[in-house]
Amino acid sequence: MKQYTVNKDLKKERKDCPFDAEELTRFWDGGADKTLNRRKMETFFLSDPILKDDIPSEYLSHKERYEHAIRKSCILFKKFNAWQEKNDDGRSLTETYITFLGLVNSAIIKGSSPFTVHYLMFIPTLMSQGTSEQQAEWVGQAFSNQILGTYAQTELGHGTFIRGLETTCTYDPATEEFILNSPTLTSYKWWPAGLGHTCNYAIVMAQLYTQGKCHGIHSFIVKIRDEETWKPMPGIKVGEIGSKLGLNSINNGYIAFDNVRISRMQMLMKNAQVLKCGTYKKSVNDKLTYSTMIFVRAIIVKDMISGFLSIASTIATRYSCVRRQSELITGAGECQILDFQTQQFKIFPAIAMSFAYKCAASRLWNIYTGVTSMLIKGDLELLPELHGLACCLKAVSTADAALAVTSCRLACGGHGYMNSSNFPNIYSLTTAAETYEGENTVLLLQTARFLVKAFANNISGKKLTDTVMYLNNFKLLKRNNWITNLECMTEAFSQVAGSKIENCYYSIKQNIKSGMSKENAWNTTTIKLTKAAEAHCRLFVIKSFATTVKTAKLSAELMIVLTDLCELICAHWILNQLGDFLQYSNLKRRDVSSIEYLLEDCFKRIRPVAVSLVDSFDIHDEILNSSLGMYDGNVYERLLEDANKSPLNKEPVNESFHKYLKPYLKSKL
Amino acid sequence: MKQYTVNKDLKKERKDCPFDAEELTRFWDGGADKTLNRRKMETFFLSDPILKDDIPSEYLSHKERYEHAIRKSCILFKKFNAWQEKNDDGRSLTETYITFLGLVNSAIIKGSSPFTVHYLMFIPTLMSQGTSEQQAEWVGQAFSNQILGTYAQTELGHGTFIRGLETTCTYDPATEEFILNSPTLTSYKWWPAGLGHTCNYAIVMAQLYTQGKCHGIHSFIVKIRDEETWKPMPGIKVGEIGSKLGLNSINNGYIAFDNVRISRMQMLMKNAQVLKCGTYKKSVNDKLTYSTMIFVRAIIVKDMISGFLSIASTIATRYSCVRRQSELITGAGECQILDFQTQQFKIFPAIAMSFAYKCAASRLWNIYTGVTSMLIKGDLELLPELHGLACCLKAVSTADAALAVTSCRLACGGHGYMNSSNFPNIYSLTTAAETYEGENTVLLLQTARFLVKAFANNISGKKLTDTVMYLNNFKLLKRNNWITNLECMTEAFSQVAGSKIENCYYSIKQNIKSGMSKENAWNTTTIKLTKAAEAHCRLFVIKSFATTVKTAKLSAELMIVLTDLCELICAHWILNQLGDFLQYSNLKRRDVSSIEYLLEDCFKRIRPVAVSLVDSFDIHDEILNSSLGMYDGNVYERLLEDANKSPLNKEPVNESFHKYLKPYLKSKL
Repeated sequence: MKQYTVNKDLKKERKDCPFDAEELTRFWDGGADKTLNRRKMETFFLSDPILKDDIPSEYLSHKERYEHAIRKSCILFKKFNAWQEKNDDGRSLTETYITFLGLVNSAIIKGSSPFTVHYLMFIPTLMSQGTSEQQAEWVGQAFSNQILGTYAQTELGHGTFIRGLETTCTYDPATEEFILNSPTLTSYKWWPAGLGHTCNYAIVMAQLYTQGKCHGIHSFIVKIRDEETWKPMPGIKVGEIGSKLGLNSINNGYIAFDNVRISRMQMLMKNAQVLKCGTYKKSVNDKLTYSTMIFVRAIIVKDMISGFLSIASTIATRYSCVRRQSELITGAGECQILDFQTQQFKIFPAIAMSFAYKCAASRLWNIYTGVTSMLIKGDLELLPELHGLACCLKAVSTADAALAVTSCRLACGGHGYMNSSNFPNIYSLTTAAETYEGENTVLLLQTARFLVKAFANNISGKKLTDTVMYLNNFKLLKRNNWITNLECMTEAFSQVAGSKIENCYYSIKQNIKSGMSKENAWNTTTIKLTKAAEAHCRLFVIKSFATTVKTAKLSAELMIVLTDLCELICAHWILNQLGDFLQYSNLKRRDVSSIEYLLEDCFKRIRPVAVSLVDSFDIHDEILNSSLGMYDGNVYERLLEDANKSPLNKEPVNESFHKYLKPYLKSKL
Repeated sequence: MKQYTVNKDLKKERKDCPFDAEELTRFWDGGADKTLNRRKMETFFLSDPILKDDIPSEYLSHKERYEHAIRKSCILFKKFNAWQEKNDDGRSLTETYITFLGLVNSAIIKGSSPFTVHYLMFIPTLMSQGTSEQQAEWVGQAFSNQILGTYAQTELGHGTFIRGLETTCTYDPATEEFILNSPTLTSYKWWPAGLGHTCNYAIVMAQLYTQGKCHGIHSFIVKIRDEETWKPMPGIKVGEIGSKLGLNSINNGYIAFDNVRISRMQMLMKNAQVLKCGTYKKSVNDKLTYSTMIFVRAIIVKDMISGFLSIASTIATRYSCVRRQSELITGAGECQILDFQTQQFKIFPAIAMSFAYKCAASRLWNIYTGVTSMLIKGDLELLPELHGLACCLKAVSTADAALAVTSCRLACGGHGYMNSSNFPNIYSLTTAAETYEGENTVLLLQTARFLVKAFANNISGKKLTDTVMYLNNFKLLKRNNWITNLECMTEAFSQVAGSKIENCYYSIKQNIKSGMSKENAWNTTTIKLTKAAEAHCRLFVIKSFATTVKTAKLSAELMIVLTDLCELICAHWILNQLGDFLQYSNLKRRDVSSIEYLLEDCFKRIRPVAVSLVDSFDIHDEILNSSLGMYDGNVYERLLEDANKSPLNKEPVNESFHKYLKPYLKSKL
């Protein structure tokens, strides 16, 4: 990367920062040790010249992009293993891997590595669902990369409704083998990352048949390709699913089975089992499988969403300080566009949300570790609450992030549309998370189911768990007078959430009373149910942010700016859903202007520290990977530099001129 | 394209349509003749096998994509000229061209043709700003494609604020030439389509200097490349700006001038002039230039936005009838996902908005033609109203469309993320329109300026023009009781718009009173001003739709369904901005549930005719260009077919296995 001196406008912005930026960075990372570790990791991975591209991947063909991804993945994962061996920081492989992915996807392999699922799902599934013998056989090979695996669940015609999967796996006691089959086109496995051409093993989810009976979905480990020739094994049809909005290096694939025989021991049998004779033995505890899904959703919120938000807001904030356009005062010269109120409106909520979701994710993570340690002891009591929380947080945070990334992109005008801004890549990663690991609407309805149940429990006098405790007292709060401060605003969020859940509860009840089936009563209330779950989620986020700001051990200067951000996002979300607050909380029409004033005032307070705030995210230039967002702010130099990386610009005249254009122009048609 | 029988679920949906689909198609097109003409055009252009690709463009490299675009453009534009000669339908070249672009961008050259600006801006500018001698010299060559031109205004550092452009053009009376210069990096022209490697002429906007004085921005026609060698002319640095979120075949370019000399007659002098001696003669009427911008914005709303909305909603609707997932009633089998209320919530507003914006655009177009015919007679009275309207409609319609396209994509789950769904391409075209031809926030503020002025005029007793007439009576309406019907809802939109404009007016006044400068008073109100302009726009759209439905000569059956759609979008927009309606209109809290009920009821009414509605858009399969949206609904067959078009799938083992992967796996690290 070419070195420049820092743009003078940015230099000025950084002077006189009222808080200690390094203190904020350590808070953001979750501790000084984590900051240190992250920086070490970044230096280790990002400074290696062998991983740099001459030509940005956007200019390559789809096939070349894949081949580059494989070349780089092989280098990168050797480094990753070396890193793992030397730096055992007590985190699980998956956790380290996800942090690492943050670097990879933006800095090293745009569109992600095809090895991703090997670490993210193949190994973890083997470890959680394989017997000790199975683990002995497979996990070592997987860890030392003698085999590369993926995880195949979703089918061409089946995603959300797992019970509807069509792939069958039938036990044949005569040979002590299973027979895998894809009976229809819609049963083709579709989407597994790395499946296209990269992996030679897959964990395949299929309907288990034995002794003439179907026992539902179970996992099987299947060899897909021969390790010497890499040719597909007999009976297997495998390929990639084609190009996508993003994630184009990850090699998502499809697979179909035509009577593929695998040994009995290739069914992962830690829980359920099929004995030699074909007798099926049920799993004792299937709730544990359930917790893997929650884990992944918690990780998405914890390690990805704040990351995308902070990258997008860093790029937009720095660019808006360098970019000068139009005169606020005629004749005063063109001003920094960050001085426009409308520009602050597009960018500052993204900064505030970065922190808000960071705090919420950290609280979710604490709940997760608490609940899983109870799970191991057999205590399932808090699992539904955790599940409800992980579902709505994954849904709302990914949706909010996709909108905020777009808003930051649009704030950068035409230049935000350039791939060199990195916005298109960040958006493609963010919006993908709206669909994968549980489609957002489906997840919101799962949360809603938990909430309506909790409401019913409350009526029947049962004890409420922590995150729904407000169902007990939200009505009382409506009597209070409105004061535009954090406490009152937070309470208003609980009134809105509580009222919406109450409405759903009674509307379903009313439907049933008027003769509808339970299911229909639910189905005709789903729009309202998703909105109730969203309101519950926003309350949790605001509360987590407000509590963190109040209780974290921070300097007074930092407390001030974080409180500003917390007020900003409260006011922003209230105004976004103003109808709800006017209907369901103690907010009155006459109070609205005070919230509008608060929001505008927060913008004024954040403006002078905006650059220092995003600097504190401490995002490595290679991860930002943006002509508009680099630390030194040489926006225009980089735009031109990046343009000149285009292979089209390597020759003054493209050959299509001689082949097509010249004859066309001469034909005088 | 492979032929299939029609999917049985879609067949069922199409049975018993209560209205005449062909009648709706003709209404949608604006008349039976237009339907006929469009279909003829589609057959002519879309059936030519020479324009078809074996490999979808997403799989090509950036450079290959460009070369393919040039090859196809040369074929295509020969056909276009042939079409023009044979089919003079009285529309302007630009109008025909824009309709034609709708075919090209989606069906023939994804990412648009690099010849686009030649037709869209180069020729029209020559015709409107060139003298008759200049037209004689250039227009003929341009029409017969002996030269290819583009339009260069935006610079690397300058977009919105045209006065800030830095390119200079200085007259030298000694040689009777102009000297073009790019004094800084930020003065590089940046963005013109086709400029990279395709065009050899450009109209360049530059600051005119003569006799030591700057006379502001004027247009010059400049030769960029030699017609024989296609090498850049001396003193010219030219290239493409690099890869983008979309529009990757259009060859956007940059250009810098180093003392490039052009003759005096290369300044377009229909309006302002520089005489031989260097004397500057001012333009008599510069408002006419102004009207070109309005024209393009009107065209965007008229011919593009409804197009994108209708494509997206067609794909999502058909897919949602074919896709079956989850059981609404346990054991009843998986249902069509369009039966989910939440799915209807994602898709049906897009269908309704297709019609709403179609009606609004058609009313805008009528106003446009009325005002321009008055302009020619020198009557400028209604120009500000037209300008205000075109600005907000362009801004709100493009923003709404980008959100709706995304919502339709998300409704298709993971499959919507595939490029073969065509959603990524449609989105990239839609969101680009949020920025080009006037950045949306800037446009809303232009409308707001008109509205605040109109409000002041009303207070001082001046006559109001048609679209702001409501400023006179919106307050009276607040006294009426709420009834949930079209009339009352439409009136509520005028109350909201009126109140918001009123608030802005008084808030600015208050600011000035408290000592702020006029400019600062405006600048601290811009968030509210953009929202006031948006409210004004929504009122215009709702009114246009409601009036059209009431007054168009349509069968009773069609009236019913269009009224349903109009009610749907009214209810949807009210609930989206419920806070505004509760604050500013006669809607009371107790009335809200009736609107929620109306929306849900509209969904129920639209559900049985949804497929027939989108069928009536009559979008050619080649234009839909979507594995998920084809008329026959063979979704899964096409997904697999499209996947197998990937060059990666042409060989069972990619060479990267032998080069990288095998050594990696064998290294047992």
